[in-house]
Amino acid sequence: MLFKVEMTVNIPPDMPVTTATEIKAKEKAYSQALQQEGKWRHIWRVAGLYSNVSIFDVKDADELHEILMGLPLYPYMDIQVDALCRHPSSIRNDDK
Amino acid sequence: MLFKVEMTVNIPPDMPVTTATEIKAKEKAYSQALQQEGKWRHIWRVAGLYSNVSIFDVKDADELHEILMGLPLYPYMDIQVDALCRHPSSIRNDDK
Amino acid sequence: MLFKVEMTVNIPPDMPVTTATEIKAKEKAYSQALQQEGKWRHIWRVAGLYSNVSIFDVKDADELHEILMGLPLYPYMDIQVDALCRHPSSIRNDDK
Amino acid sequence: MLFKVEMTVNIPPDMPVTTATEIKAKEKAYSQALQQEGKWRHIWRVAGLYSNVSIFDVKDADELHEILMGLPLYPYMDIQVDALCRHPSSIRNDDK
Amino acid sequence: MLFKVEMTVNIPPDMPVTTATEIKAKEKAYSQALQQEGKWRHIWRVAGLYSNVSIFDVKDADELHEILMGLPLYPYMDIQVDALCRHPSSIRNDDK
Amino acid sequence: MLFKVEMTVNIPPDMPVTTATEIKAKEKAYSQALQQEGKWRHIWRVAGLYSNVSIFDVKDADELHEILMGLPLYPYMDIQVDALCRHPSSIRNDDK
Amino acid sequence: MLFKVEMTVNIPPDMPVTTATEIKAKEKAYSQALQQEGKWRHIWRVAGLYSNVSIFDVKDADELHEILMGLPLYPYMDIQVDALCRHPSSIRNDDK
Amino acid sequence: MLFKVEMTVNIPPDMPVTTATEIKAKEKAYSQALQQEGKWRHIWRVAGLYSNVSIFDVKDADELHEILMGLPLYPYMDIQVDALCRHPSSIRNDDK
Amino acid sequence: MLFKVEMTVNIPPDMPVTTATEIKAKEKAYSQALQQEGKWRHIWRVAGLYSNVSIFDVKDADELHEILMGLPLYPYMDIQVDALCRHPSSIRNDDK
Amino acid sequence: MLFKVEMTVNIPPDMPVTTATEIKAKEKAYSQALQQEGKWRHIWRVAGLYSNVSIFDVKDADELHEILMGLPLYPYMDIQVDALCRHPSSIRNDDK
Repeated sequence: MLFKVEMTVNIPPDMPVTTATEIKAKEKAYSQALQQEGKWRHIWRVAGLYSNVSIFDVKDADELHEILMGLPLYPYMDIQVDALCRHPSSIRNDDK
Repeated sequence: MLFKVEMTVNIPPDMPVTTATEIKAKEKAYSQALQQEGKWRHIWRVAGLYSNVSIFDVKDADELHEILMGLPLYPYMDIQVDALCRHPSSIRNDDK
Repeated sequence: MLFKVEMTVNIPPDMPVTTATEIKAKEKAYSQALQQEGKWRHIWRVAGLYSNVSIFDVKDADELHEILMGLPLYPYMDIQVDALCRHPSSIRNDDK
Repeated sequence: MLFKVEMTVNIPPDMPVTTATEIKAKEKAYSQALQQEGKWRHIWRVAGLYSNVSIFDVKDADELHEILMGLPLYPYMDIQVDALCRHPSSIRNDDK
Repeated sequence: MLFKVEMTVNIPPDMPVTTATEIKAKEKAYSQALQQEGKWRHIWRVAGLYSNVSIFDVKDADELHEILMGLPLYPYMDIQVDALCRHPSSIRNDDK
Repeated sequence: MLFKVEMTVNIPPDMPVTTATEIKAKEKAYSQALQQEGKWRHIWRVAGLYSNVSIFDVKDADELHEILMGLPLYPYMDIQVDALCRHPSSIRNDDK
Repeated sequence: MLFKVEMTVNIPPDMPVTTATEIKAKEKAYSQALQQEGKWRHIWRVAGLYSNVSIFDVKDADELHEILMGLPLYPYMDIQVDALCRHPSSIRNDDK
Repeated sequence: MLFKVEMTVNIPPDMPVTTATEIKAKEKAYSQALQQEGKWRHIWRVAGLYSNVSIFDVKDADELHEILMGLPLYPYMDIQVDALCRHPSSIRNDDK
Repeated sequence: MLFKVEMTVNIPPDMPVTTATEIKAKEKAYSQALQQEGKWRHIWRVAGLYSNVSIFDVKDADELHEILMGLPLYPYMDIQVDALCRHPSSIRNDDK
Repeated sequence: MLFKVEMTVNIPPDMPVTTATEIKAKEKAYSQALQQEGKWRHIWRVAGLYSNVSIFDVKDADELHEILMGLPLYPYMDIQVDALCRHPSSIRNDDK
């Protein structure tokens, strides 16, 4: 099942730089592992913002929840979730 | 350049069914032609709503504008546009 | 999979009474058939409003979409959808 | 009487982990005791968020208020309350 | 049980004056009958607006719903409902 | 003159319990004194929230302002004020 | 007592020009009479909008309500009302 | 040129009382000097709120900006600015 | 004086095409005449929307108001106005 | 490609003055260098606010993102981005 997730990161300005760097590195590794598995299908940066638009391909809402709760930056994020379904005009078989 | 576009269609309940059917058919053909050209990369339905989430890959904002203005359903749509850029964590070379 | 759907009905004041009565009867029959099948698990009225809170138990987002698009009152509704998952504190096995 | 309550938890990122763990354990025990009594009828997690959708079955608004004020996580919650009533289309006798 | 209900009336400017006068007269009679019964405890006009703030004292949410649905002006109203309970600082025994 | 005032209290979670208890006791005494004088006509709790709906009967806006500024919890409150007037359908002579 | 009132006029584009001209002339005469009496103290246009910011000096909320309900353009207006009081820093004795 | 400016002051509850008293005294002196000069034409308190509605009469937007930036309470304020012009119905020559 | 004005055009879908074409032609001529005079300094299209961002250079708010009220499409527009002043970091002498 | 960017700066009131002065000086130098290069075409102050309206002329969304992320005040900013395109009524060849 596909979900669109929009994440906005709000790192407090007084977080020590080394802490921020470390969390961001963990976040990147976590995201890339899920991309390799095919569960985090797409991730784009929104121009000018510390936000991303992502497409997840997971078994169900429970799996999505578990993945998002595991995000190292989760405590600093605002998150919006929309369930997607196949669009009748789509010509891409895998955009189900 | 990539843009995320979210479209919500509000067809007036009193539009004759044949008119609605005709416009939707034109919309579908228009969308599929642009998908074939690679300019309309993705289109997903938002579950439960007459809305879609789309990703466009165009030369610039002018080309995006021209494409959206040509949508047969444009007069009945609410539209939101966000410019996207490559996310530093992305492992997909074409999600630039 | 479970979804919470909130529906608000806005019937135009100038719709003929017989038309409104007929659509509402179709809506009720449609809803009750889906409740019998176990797909529309719960429906409650929000006090004072022409709105309901519903819980759907469907295979996936596509099935939910198909069900909602078939609602006789759909053209007059505002709809909000949230995907649900099992809550770790829940003691009801079927509220997964 | 039935109420829908939506709770969103905002635990400050600088709360010590042991404190957070302890409060969450108390919250879980508190919720499960009320579920056993039949007063907290349903609790679902909203996918991807630290939020839940709950249905309470209480004598009146005073009892609801007392229950919610007793939530161990209450000081960190945003809460929305809607009074529900039986829906004329419902086929479940206990969803009154 | 007490509820605060805020009602805003939006009569379309093209409604014939006689129709509007008739509905408003019915609304007034309906409201005053419920005030006589003690179910519509208070009604105040919001200064400058075609809105009121009302306090209802009813058996439960179902009774409130039935009363509001019977308002002659209901099809032209926006309505907000909040369940109230006794405030611990109140010195009025009947503001339970 | 009558005003509806809605107050929502946001006490910071890190306020010492004794401080909070002391301020709340002062708030209660302050409110009850004004209720005795007839200036704070009604106070109800909004179910599930640390909010109240109040009706004030004061000489003018200046007196209302002075009363609200004197609330011990004022620094922690969000406040909304609406001027009320007699509703033409009201049957209560003192709900002027 | 002083009130700030903000009015935004939404005349439907299909209103006949003569009707609009006539209502606007009545509105102007109505406003100027109240200005002459000293009840409508100030009226300013918001630059670029069909909106005004006005200050009323009336006996109480009931008088304000009666005045606003009498506005010839009232059926086409969105209105916001705020009760004002004397500011402790003001040096103008009549801006009470 | 005239501007309406609405200012809401949010003084943090933990600011020492002497600091707050000192800033407010400076704010009052600053405001009264500008009122004497005729640049800060009106200032009213919004009933029940730590907010004011002000009318400024300045040469242009640059002068307004310089004045507002000089407010001792500026760092604690939310501010809204609207440019005003003479209303065609106004009978006061100086409300240009 | 400079103002930023954002205009969004909402032409009703049932306006005859010839009427729409005629109004748009008048709008274009009106805009270009003001651009020639130097009063309408910039106009950009917002990508994907029937909206523009414009910068006006006018004597004062009254002149801006008169210009905007003269827009042939004004009855179909939503408009937002912000007064601008010279930015201390600007290196363009005419962006005053 | 052109983008409109609106930036609102929220410097915490407890930031030491020397720190704030230093960051603002860096911000000014950074902005002026980009203006010299022609990439930051316009910057205006919004009257009365610590906000600016800017027009950027960049190769694409990636270049815009890199520029904005480099702003010394970025951690204290709220930012809104809109992609612009040439307006068909524009007479300025470089406002493409």
